[in-house]
Amino acid sequence: MDYGFAYGVSSLKPSVIREILKSSGNTIPLAAGNPAPDAFPVDDIKKIVKDVLDSDPVLALQYGITEGYAPLVAELTKLAKNRYGVGTDNDSLIVTSGAQQVMSLTSQCFINNGDCVICEEPSFIGALNCFRSYGARLVGVPVESDGINIEALEEKLKAESNVKFIYTIPNFQNPAGATMSLEKRKALYELAKKYGVMVLEDNPYGDLRVSGSDVAAIKSFDTDGIVIYSGSFSKIVAPGIRVGFVLAPSEVIAKLTVAKQTQDVHTPLISQLIVYKWLTEYDFEGHIEKIRKIYKRKLDLLCGCIDEQLGDFLTYHRPEGGLFVWAKLNDGINMLDFCRKASAAGVSVVPGNAFMTDGDAECQYIRMNFSTPSDEDIVKGVKILGEVARSL
Amino acid sequence: MDYGFAYGVSSLKPSVIREILKSSGNTIPLAAGNPAPDAFPVDDIKKIVKDVLDSDPVLALQYGITEGYAPLVAELTKLAKNRYGVGTDNDSLIVTSGAQQVMSLTSQCFINNGDCVICEEPSFIGALNCFRSYGARLVGVPVESDGINIEALEEKLKAESNVKFIYTIPNFQNPAGATMSLEKRKALYELAKKYGVMVLEDNPYGDLRVSGSDVAAIKSFDTDGIVIYSGSFSKIVAPGIRVGFVLAPSEVIAKLTVAKQTQDVHTPLISQLIVYKWLTEYDFEGHIEKIRKIYKRKLDLLCGCIDEQLGDFLTYHRPEGGLFVWAKLNDGINMLDFCRKASAAGVSVVPGNAFMTDGDAECQYIRMNFSTPSDEDIVKGVKILGEVARSL
Repeated sequence: MDYGFAYGVSSLKPSVIREILKSSGNTIPLAAGNPAPDAFPVDDIKKIVKDVLDSDPVLALQYGITEGYAPLVAELTKLAKNRYGVGTDNDSLIVTSGAQQVMSLTSQCFINNGDCVICEEPSFIGALNCFRSYGARLVGVPVESDGINIEALEEKLKAESNVKFIYTIPNFQNPAGATMSLEKRKALYELAKKYGVMVLEDNPYGDLRVSGSDVAAIKSFDTDGIVIYSGSFSKIVAPGIRVGFVLAPSEVIAKLTVAKQTQDVHTPLISQLIVYKWLTEYDFEGHIEKIRKIYKRKLDLLCGCIDEQLGDFLTYHRPEGGLFVWAKLNDGINMLDFCRKASAAGVSVVPGNAFMTDGDAECQYIRMNFSTPSDEDIVKGVKILGEVARSL
Repeated sequence: MDYGFAYGVSSLKPSVIREILKSSGNTIPLAAGNPAPDAFPVDDIKKIVKDVLDSDPVLALQYGITEGYAPLVAELTKLAKNRYGVGTDNDSLIVTSGAQQVMSLTSQCFINNGDCVICEEPSFIGALNCFRSYGARLVGVPVESDGINIEALEEKLKAESNVKFIYTIPNFQNPAGATMSLEKRKALYELAKKYGVMVLEDNPYGDLRVSGSDVAAIKSFDTDGIVIYSGSFSKIVAPGIRVGFVLAPSEVIAKLTVAKQTQDVHTPLISQLIVYKWLTEYDFEGHIEKIRKIYKRKLDLLCGCIDEQLGDFLTYHRPEGGLFVWAKLNDGINMLDFCRKASAAGVSVVPGNAFMTDGDAECQYIRMNFSTPSDEDIVKGVKILGEVARSL
C-alpha cells in the first residue's frame, strides 16, 4: 500500500534526540534533556494524589472540560500575571498537555501547507518538527549570546511571504543557552507588529535561572494581541505528568481550545489536580529555590569539567539557567566524528545539526546537558569527551 | 489583528455537545456521553497509584518514550490479539492520549487540505471536527440498523477523489447505536481494498455489549495493511486518565509516533501505569462484567421510559450496547424546537444535526444518553420529554 502521507509528515524524521535516548541505555546521557529526578517534589505529589483520589475520585477520573480544571485555569491566570508579568483582560488561558501541545495547537490553528515560520537558529527540535509536520517552511535567524539577531530577523520578515509567526525561546534558549536582552525583546515585538505576524514565546525554562536577573517576557509588551505565551510545569514539577499552559488573545485561545478538543479532549485530571494543589497548598516557591540550587551546582560542575578537559577544543557561552551548554568545536574537529566517537566511548551528546532548519548544513556545535546525568557521570563523561577530542 | 487561521480551523465550531454540557449545570444530562461514575474502579486505581508512586516515583514522573511505557505496549498488543482478535506481525501499537488522539494523529499524518474523508452519517462529532480541522471534505454515507449502507459507500468511493480513509465505529455507533453486521464489515474491507483507501476503525464502546454477540473487528481481516484500529480505556476504566491505543501497519505507526512526538511527547506515565497495573494485577474482566450489568440496567430503564412516555412521538432501534439511544421524532415535530423546549424544561438532549456532515440540513433525530444521568434522572428526564412532546 502506498500510504500517501500528508505533505508535512511524509518527509518528517523522528526527533534525533529521542532516538539517541531510546538507544543510549548504557551511555552517559549528556544528550538528554530530562530534569534531574531529585528535583521532583515526590513527597508532595504522593500526598496530593492520595488526597485527590480520597476526597473526590469522580472529579479526578471523569471527563473534564477542554479549557482545563477551572480552579487551575484561574490559578494559572493569577500566576501568569503576578509571577511572569503576562496577561491582560484581552487574553485567556487554557491548560495544555505539556508545552509541546502549545506548539501543536498553534501549528494546527495557523499553518497551511507552505506557510513560513521564522525560528531561531539553532532551536528546539520538538517545535521545529511540529511546524514541519504541518508543512511549514522554516526560516532560521541566528541566535547570538544576547538572543536573536534583530537585523537578520527584519531581513527575513521583509523577504518572506505568508509568515505566520516567529518562534522564540527567550530564556536559556534550547539549545543555545542564550537569554534574549530586554532591548532585543522589545525590538522583536516591534518588528512582529510592523510586519503583522504573531509571536510564539516559549518559556519552559524561565524558572531555572541560576545567575543574573529576570528579563521581562515579550508577552508583557503585548498591547496589540499578537503574542502567544507558552508555559510548562515539566521542569519545575515533573515532565511525566504533561502539564503546560498557553496564554494568548482570547480570539486565538478560542481556536486553540477547539483544536485541543480535536487532539485529546482535555489534559488528564490527575495531572491538573497535582499542579493545582501544588501551587495552592504546597511551598512551590521553596521548591523552585531548591531546584535552582541543584541546577546551579550541576551547571558549575559541567562548566568546570569542560574548562579543564575540553578548554583547548571548544568555546561556549556560560548560560544563566536552563539545562544545556551549547559549545562550538574548534575548526579542524569534525563534529559528527566527535559525536560518533563519543558515543562509541560511552558518552552521548547531541550533534548540533539536529537543531538547525537545514540538518544537512555543516555545523560545529554540540549540545551537552547537565540536569539528567549524576554528578559522577558529568565528571566521568566530560573526561571521556576530552580523551575523544585529544584522539581526533 | 486579522489572525489568518489555517483553512480547516477558521470555520470550525466548538463541539455542540461540549458547549451544551458546559452550560447545562442544572439540567438533567441526557445530552452527555460520560461513563457512569459508579463504573469507575476507584478502589483499584487508588491502590495502583499509591503502589506506583511508592515503588518507582521517578518512572511515574520522568519523561517517557513516545510509543508508550514498554510493558504496557506489550500488554496491549497481547490484549488486542487475544481479546479483540486484531494485530499481525506487520502491525505495531502505541499508547495514545485517549482515542481522540488517534483521530488527531491519523488526520495529521494523512490529510492535506481538501482531501476527502468518508464517514458514517451520523457520526461522532469529535472525530468529524478533527478531520475538518485539517481541511478534510467530509462525505457522509448513511448508517442503517446493521451499519453503513454499502451501496452508497461504493458510490462515494467511485465519485470522490483523494479519499484518504473511511471512518467507522462498527460497534454501538455514536450516535446511531447501530452495530455493523459481519457481512457489511467484510464488504467495507473489500471496498477499501478495491479503491485503495485506508479504514479508520474506532472501537471505544466494544466492551460495553449488553445483548447479542460480538462481531469480528474489520481490522481482523486486514491482510493488506489498510486498517488503523483505535481502542480506548475511557469507557472501561475512566475517561479522565486519557488513555487509548492505536494498532496499525508498522509503517503507519512510525508516522503516527512522529506525529505524537509533535503533539504531546508522550501520554502521562501515571495514566499509563494505572492501565498497565489494572490489566495485569486486577480483575479487569470482572470489572467489565460489572459495568455491563450497570449499563444493561440503565439502557433497559431508558428504553422502558421512552416506550412509555415517548412511544407516540418517536421511533428508535434498541442498541446492543454503547451509551446512546438515537431516536427519530415523528414528522410534524420540529426537532430543534423539541430540543430547545426540553432544555428550557430542564432536560438536555443532543439535536441530531450535530452529528451530520452538513449541520444545516434538516434532521429529525435526537441522541439520548443513559450512562451519565442517575436512574432517577432518567425517569424524571424522559417524563419531562414526554410532556414537551405532548405540548408541541
